[in-house]
This record gives sequence, C-alpha cells and structure tokens, in this order.
Amino acid sequence: MGPLTTVRRVEFRDTDAAGIVHFSAFFFWMESAEHELLRAAGIPVIDSGPEGVDASWPRVSVSCDYVSAVRFGDEIEIAVAVEALGRSSVTYSFAFSVAGRAVARGRVVAVRCLMHPGRKPEAVAIPGDIVSRFESYRTGV
Amino acid sequence: MGPLTTVRRVEFRDTDAAGIVHFSAFFFWMESAEHELLRAAGIPVIDSGPEGVDASWPRVSVSCDYVSAVRFGDEIEIAVAVEALGRSSVTYSFAFSVAGRAVARGRVVAVRCLMHPGRKPEAVAIPGDIVSRFESYRTGV
Amino acid sequence: MGPLTTVRRVEFRDTDAAGIVHFSAFFFWMESAEHELLRAAGIPVIDSGPEGVDASWPRVSVSCDYVSAVRFGDEIEIAVAVEALGRSSVTYSFAFSVAGRAVARGRVVAVRCLMHPGRKPEAVAIPGDIVSRFESYRTGV
Amino acid sequence: MGPLTTVRRVEFRDTDAAGIVHFSAFFFWMESAEHELLRAAGIPVIDSGPEGVDASWPRVSVSCDYVSAVRFGDEIEIAVAVEALGRSSVTYSFAFSVAGRAVARGRVVAVRCLMHPGRKPEAVAIPGDIVSRFESYRTGV
Repeated sequence: MGPLTTVRRVEFRDTDAAGIVHFSAFFFWMESAEHELLRAAGIPVIDSGPEGVDASWPRVSVSCDYVSAVRFGDEIEIAVAVEALGRSSVTYSFAFSVAGRAVARGRVVAVRCLMHPGRKPEAVAIPGDIVSRFESYRTGV
Repeated sequence: MGPLTTVRRVEFRDTDAAGIVHFSAFFFWMESAEHELLRAAGIPVIDSGPEGVDASWPRVSVSCDYVSAVRFGDEIEIAVAVEALGRSSVTYSFAFSVAGRAVARGRVVAVRCLMHPGRKPEAVAIPGDIVSRFESYRTGV
Repeated sequence: MGPLTTVRRVEFRDTDAAGIVHFSAFFFWMESAEHELLRAAGIPVIDSGPEGVDASWPRVSVSCDYVSAVRFGDEIEIAVAVEALGRSSVTYSFAFSVAGRAVARGRVVAVRCLMHPGRKPEAVAIPGDIVSRFESYRTGV
Repeated sequence: MGPLTTVRRVEFRDTDAAGIVHFSAFFFWMESAEHELLRAAGIPVIDSGPEGVDASWPRVSVSCDYVSAVRFGDEIEIAVAVEALGRSSVTYSFAFSVAGRAVARGRVVAVRCLMHPGRKPEAVAIPGDIVSRFESYRTGV
C-alpha cells in the first residue's frame, strides 16, 4: 500500500519569533501522523498486554532534517511510512511538503514495551498480527 | 510572609510569529510558580491520600490579563500569593513584571482532589496542616 | 447565524502526567477556533492597515473554566461565537464538549491593533466591514 | 574549556499521559542550552549582519537518542559542547543526565544565515571572531 498521507494547517502555537514554524513542531506532527497510521492500521496506541500490563511504543531515537521554512497558515502534507521492522522496533519515515515543495524529512524509531507501573519499560517482541498490519505501510521510499 | 517571587528568562519556545511571547506561556509560568510555592511551603504537588489514592490539585478556573508585551531573552519576575482559601479550593494570584514594568496579572483556582484511577476527581477538604502552610503565603495584595 | 463549530482529536502533545489533557491546551484550541472563525468570516488574521503597518488582534484578557477531564484520543467539539463588540475589541466565547458532555468554557478579549515594528501595539477602531462580518457570529448564548 | 553545563528542573508542561517527560522536551532544552552557550561565549543569538540584515542560526538537522525515562520534578543536567565547525555551520552535541544517570544524547546542526525579510535564509561564513569564541567550547567528547 505504501505511505499514509495526512494534511494539517499550521497553527499559530507552532510559530516562533523568527516568524516561521519552530523546529520542534515537526516532532509533534510526526507523533500525530504515527498515531493516525496506527489507527488506520487497526493497531492500538496503548493496549493491554499480558497480565493486564499496558503495552505501548516509547521512542528510542528521532531525527529531522529541515530544507525550507514553513509559515503560519500553510497547509502541510505529511507522508508517513514504515521503513523497517525489527523484533521489537518499528522505524517510521516522514516526508513533509507544502504545495508540492519538500520542507523536511524525519525518522522515528519506536519500541514495543510493557509499561510496568513505576519500573523501566520492558522491550518485547511485536506480536505477529501487528507485524502484518505494519507491513501494509512498508515502503521502499 | 506574603508572596513568593521567582525569576526566569524567556525562552525561544515561548515566542510566536508576532515576535513576542505567546499568551499561553503565562499559564505555564503560573503552573511552575505554583509548584515552587508548594515546594517552598513543604506541600507535595502529588501526595498519598487515604487508602493509597493520590491527592492532587486540578485547576477549575484560570485567567490572565495582558498589559504589555514580553520578548525573547527578557527576565520576567513572577510573584505568586495565596489570595483565598476555601474548604477544598485555593486561589492563587500572580503578578508578572519585566524590569519593574507590569506586564500581566493572572489567577488560578485549584481544588484538592482524590485522583481515583479511571474515575472523576473527588474534591476533598484541604487538611489543616496544609491550610497552615498556605497561610504563610496569604496576602492582601 | 450563531456560533461556528469545529471538531478536533486530542493529540498526545496536549496530555500531561496526570493522564489527562493539560489545562493550557484549551487556550491553543481557542486560538485555532478563533482563526477558523476569522477565515470563515473572510477577516484576515493579519492584514495591511494604513501606511503598510500590519494590523492584528493581540489578546488582552483570557479565561477558562474546567468542568470535566478530557483524554488522549477524545474528539472534542468547540463552539465559538462573538459575544460582544466594542470600538476596538472583540470578545469571543467558547464552549467545549466531548460526546455531548460539556467539558469547559472559555472567553477571549482581543483588540484590533496596528503593529508598528519595535513599538507598543496601537489600538484602533474595528473597520465597519469587519464589524459586519463579526455580526454573523454574534449570539446570545 | 570543554562543555558548558546547566541544570533545570523538569516542569509539568513537559510531561505526557505516559507519566514521563514527552520526547519533544529534550529539543526545547537543547535550544535553551545552546542559547546559554552563546550568551556565555559572548555570541549574539540574533545580530545585525551586513546592511542591517539580521543574522541568526536556523537549524538544518537535529536528533535525539533516548536511554532512560525522566519524570516531573527531576533535576536534569545538560552538557553542551561544540562538536564541529564548518564554514557556515556549527554542530552542537548534548548529554543529558539525572543524578549521574545518562538519560539521553542529542545533536543539533545550525547554520549562520542572513535573514532577509520575506526571502529564504542565506547561508554565510561564520565570522572569525565568532569561530574563536566557539573554539572555547570545542570538545573531543
């Protein structure tokens, strides 16, 4: 199937005194696009793992490269794809554009973890049915 | 004793494309000043109430009036006082200034609540020892 | 016509460690709903005033009352109306609900100002054609 | 001289519904630590370049690797150093720790640019005196 594409309008909260979008906003947009992909794929953002412990997807590595400025009111298009799948990790890649002009690229590595209350998250293998759902959004791009 | 005063430098994250501090930043600063007052007064931000249920201070009403613009790099002085105490509520008032110039005033009403997991917060009376601690920061200003 | 209604899904960035939406998020939502109303009414968020000086709408007073918690993933409905119009000021009122349940009410007073670079914003009368456009969103609610 | 070290207390605004600090907060802390380094080195965050055009430091690439969770109220220590200097670029590296425990590492590449109003930022060589000031914060770490 390839990437999922979503569009959002740049809000004033995401700008800074340089008159453009603050670089941090791209990470919020990556997170929201990741959650849209999970919802579209039928994968819960947080689900009940074994013994009632919640399983979720904390991130271990994120990055963003900036090409061109984005401004208040722009409509930004975000394409998100699953770039790689490991035993417990999923790597998402993101391409951002405004009116067909590339403005940024990002990457997020998240790990399936059991979230034991008050303890360190425990990395666990991604269940097979979730792997299958992720595969629909794999892409060579 | 009267108000507690704290100073912070305005960060770039708190500015917007109008070139000044975004109005929302004052609410973040009120929350941090409230937490400084609680720490100074020896009142936990979150403590264990009866039967192991956490007790905390969700807010029910907040407001801010803006007088003058604040800019990146400014040192902003924040004075916070306890304006009123009810059975379960505490009202804080805040005065913001930069280099002696008043820039904003704010107010926050928070309520002592038991935070039952997955249920609505339950308002409870503020324990007497916490009332005494708040009294040190009462002010007529 | 009455209020403009808009819906948005609560994003993870807007939650806090109490497990619910941070109280500040409502102010970001008010600002975005205000901008949607301006766009729907054909009023520029920033426009060129006399002599090439930008005219915009800085806020002088904001408030929010909280009734019920909102959580990650909720769809929140925001109704915004023009509550009052002064010579240079516009007062917006906001009602927030989730699945028909009222969760918060807010109010914002903004003032039409000329934004002279490096100087204090100068309040000016709202032009008649903009007053007419606002009138469509007046409401007694 | 080596890295500059700064400490800050984790604020509630930086937490999320997973009960820990949101991953985006590290980027805000990197930016503030970068600005502290610039101030300590006597380098303006924004200065007047040739012909009155402002010169500043937009970022072209940022990344962060997360090792361990950080919580509300933690005191986080941030070490920032200049890792590399190019003709127009500066690469900062950041190490984050809480009570001696490493929690994250980050990197930011910023480029000296003339900020022509309404045009694309123009990369320019870093002036020699600024290069010298950066050299004091070079480190092999």
